[in-house]
Amino acid sequence: MNLILTFRLLGGLLLFLAVALLLPLPCSYYYADGAGLAFVLSALICSGIGAGLFFSCRSNKDLSLREGFAIVTLGWSAFALFGALPYLFSGAISSPLDAVFETMSGFTTTGATILTDIEIVPESVLFWRALTQWLGGMGFIVLSLAILPLMGVGGMQLFKAEMPGPTADRLKPRIQDTAKLLWGIYVMLTATLIVLLMFGGMNFFDALCHAFTTLATGGFSPRNASAGAYNSAYIDGIITLFMFLAAINFSLYYLALRGRLRDFYRNEELRIYLALVISIILLVMWANHGAVYASILENLRYSAFQVVSIISTTGFGTADYAQWPAASQLLLFFAMVVGGCAGSTAGGIKVARLLLLFKHAQVQVYRLIHPRAVRLVKLGCKPVDRDVMHSILGFFAVWMGVFFFATLLMTASGLDLISAAGSVVATLGVVGPGFGSVGPVENYAHIAPFGKSVLIACMLLGRLELFTVLVLFVPSLWHK
Amino acid sequence: MNLILTFRLLGGLLLFLAVALLLPLPCSYYYADGAGLAFVLSALICSGIGAGLFFSCRSNKDLSLREGFAIVTLGWSAFALFGALPYLFSGAISSPLDAVFETMSGFTTTGATILTDIEIVPESVLFWRALTQWLGGMGFIVLSLAILPLMGVGGMQLFKAEMPGPTADRLKPRIQDTAKLLWGIYVMLTATLIVLLMFGGMNFFDALCHAFTTLATGGFSPRNASAGAYNSAYIDGIITLFMFLAAINFSLYYLALRGRLRDFYRNEELRIYLALVISIILLVMWANHGAVYASILENLRYSAFQVVSIISTTGFGTADYAQWPAASQLLLFFAMVVGGCAGSTAGGIKVARLLLLFKHAQVQVYRLIHPRAVRLVKLGCKPVDRDVMHSILGFFAVWMGVFFFATLLMTASGLDLISAAGSVVATLGVVGPGFGSVGPVENYAHIAPFGKSVLIACMLLGRLELFTVLVLFVPSLWHK
Repeated sequence: MNLILTFRLLGGLLLFLAVALLLPLPCSYYYADGAGLAFVLSALICSGIGAGLFFSCRSNKDLSLREGFAIVTLGWSAFALFGALPYLFSGAISSPLDAVFETMSGFTTTGATILTDIEIVPESVLFWRALTQWLGGMGFIVLSLAILPLMGVGGMQLFKAEMPGPTADRLKPRIQDTAKLLWGIYVMLTATLIVLLMFGGMNFFDALCHAFTTLATGGFSPRNASAGAYNSAYIDGIITLFMFLAAINFSLYYLALRGRLRDFYRNEELRIYLALVISIILLVMWANHGAVYASILENLRYSAFQVVSIISTTGFGTADYAQWPAASQLLLFFAMVVGGCAGSTAGGIKVARLLLLFKHAQVQVYRLIHPRAVRLVKLGCKPVDRDVMHSILGFFAVWMGVFFFATLLMTASGLDLISAAGSVVATLGVVGPGFGSVGPVENYAHIAPFGKSVLIACMLLGRLELFTVLVLFVPSLWHK
Repeated sequence: MNLILTFRLLGGLLLFLAVALLLPLPCSYYYADGAGLAFVLSALICSGIGAGLFFSCRSNKDLSLREGFAIVTLGWSAFALFGALPYLFSGAISSPLDAVFETMSGFTTTGATILTDIEIVPESVLFWRALTQWLGGMGFIVLSLAILPLMGVGGMQLFKAEMPGPTADRLKPRIQDTAKLLWGIYVMLTATLIVLLMFGGMNFFDALCHAFTTLATGGFSPRNASAGAYNSAYIDGIITLFMFLAAINFSLYYLALRGRLRDFYRNEELRIYLALVISIILLVMWANHGAVYASILENLRYSAFQVVSIISTTGFGTADYAQWPAASQLLLFFAMVVGGCAGSTAGGIKVARLLLLFKHAQVQVYRLIHPRAVRLVKLGCKPVDRDVMHSILGFFAVWMGVFFFATLLMTASGLDLISAAGSVVATLGVVGPGFGSVGPVENYAHIAPFGKSVLIACMLLGRLELFTVLVLFVPSLWHK
């Protein structure tokens, strides 16, 4: 690996972060919340270190796969470290570990928080908190649709953005082009949501923050009661819709905009995602009926919101699902594991991977009585390449392994079984709220430092689709 | 499928069951427990229906794969149905569903019980209860080492009994030959354990019952306090050792007896199994230290017993692990999922399958930076065939899917999350005791009829390695 080039690019990323750190300044000025200096100071530190790395490490080598892996993981980690500075400088969070937890939860679009009272935090810091998710979502869309497919991570080749445009051999122009298109859609959807939320009576600041974290399927809210604070069926409905939309493969929106609506509604992953969401909502409504909600409309409103919030791995809350029957909770647990569609900002294992696993298992059973039959696993109408299938099967096994191992570490840090498994699935699936002592009306403040470190690792692993991080532990990656 | 031939063979199996039903008669006579008539009546019904099927359905067709699948699943189910008769006729169990639950738990060597007071049950019925497990274990060893490999179920081809002897093309002589050798080892180990237990002061009846259910990794005990009733470190140690031994691939014993000790101790699955058992015992001891046991020897005695009992999927108990720290419980949960070695009487996913999954995942990560490298997954020194690997990957996915779906059904039947997941893992892994309300000092009596039916299905699915049962739902199996 070319470490010089890696450091240079990390420096570039820090320079970008420094610019982002200046964005909350107008907000701080408007609300006179006194946190402006914290952002200026953070930006200065970031740009200082970033410029130092960028200009001292000169390399004219081309970027290869190996540096690519290092930069993705180290870059996301650096953002979590340096993005934590405003929390510390403004005094909103006093412990460095907590600040890194909150920032990692932001940039990975998880939404798990260690804040016990959100509404006392300065507005500009809340804006930064929402912005980290929005930027994280933006980063992840490009990562999952343009970068991971090239890297061959976990079968992501299947879901790559099939954009027209320059198909040169060189990586950079292709990625830049794809990024611009996808970001255009992301910004457009965000703007639409802001307008729709303000139409429902939300003020501009709240609408902006919620739109940022909805499109990122992040789930940070500037209100203690999360999206439930507005107690408006209209706002609940709009956010439910946009959480659903944010968990759809973004390249489908591009196709739809280009008039290729058939490709949109014929997409197999989207159809299964839709079917899953509807089935889980109906099952949860069935379990909740009578036990939690008396009226069907009320049941629909709250059940649909939590289910979509969880399966899209957003994590907003309008009801305390910890009080729901065990069957509803298990369905939500399942939804956390599934997550949304590949190529969206959602986390989890992803609908398409689980769909392919299911098809693979079906073929295995079928082959028992037709041993000589050749039956390929298909997605849409295309047969799935063997290597891609192997990668997906491996991904599933690793996911389960990491889930078990991290849960074991969480029990060792003092959590009970439900809270341990709940905190891991909520961070590994980049959801946010979990179960037990990290349930929807709880937070992560009470977890021991060791446990918080484990969960920070889970968020990073979950967001970067495991393999991207794990490959750093293959010794030959570091060889010259 | 040739239904006539299937029915004929089912009739033959029922005739065999009728003979087995007469075995408890001497026991009933000796203890004068008044249950003799129940066995005679059950044997008459079995032999009547068995003879009717066997002699009315005549077919001179050869047995094919399709009938093979049907007979394995239907045969095991028929044993659970007709083997339940003595419980009902003797009055030991009054509900037919409960009796079938107990018998399925016997023949699948699970060990989950609905009996709330075991010691009031007539001796001959307790002997039958232990015998169902011993026969079930006997059946499973042959199934897993000689029949499933031929059927290609879940990658069992890898672990087949590599016996010398007639390798004719026809199935029957090969299977019969293998069966005799394996059963010889099984009987020998059982006899040894009986002697060792009696040496420790156990009476012949208790020693017989415990030896039967230890070798079968079943875990039914004639005592309410399970193996803990004797409160003897010697007996605990001996049972721990034999539970460990019973979860080793039986074809390795054959090799060892033939002087091929190198093959025995070089076996990769055995090594990993040993390493797993030792690591889990040490981790559990670490978690329990101070919290549960003050002395290291006491900690070792109880921790080792429960860990080996659970990973071998036996399910005897000498301590209430529900009172242990969350980390210990999670390790036991993991041990239930793992199970013992393939080709033993143990259940679970099996060490070898998980080992291969781990290696597959490793290769996938390695291939990210060496995309053109050809790296085969190996077991021992032999590369694993692609089809076998695919089957194992599919097995894992199906196991997880069934686990989730059955847990959902159990929450719907009224259990809390922990008990629901605990009851499913304990039956699907053919362990016996689970967690929560089906923990080690609890039983399955309180579960609603719907829930009991789900768990009966789980025991069957778990014991027959899932695919053997699921293949019956492929429509083309039933075509002419």
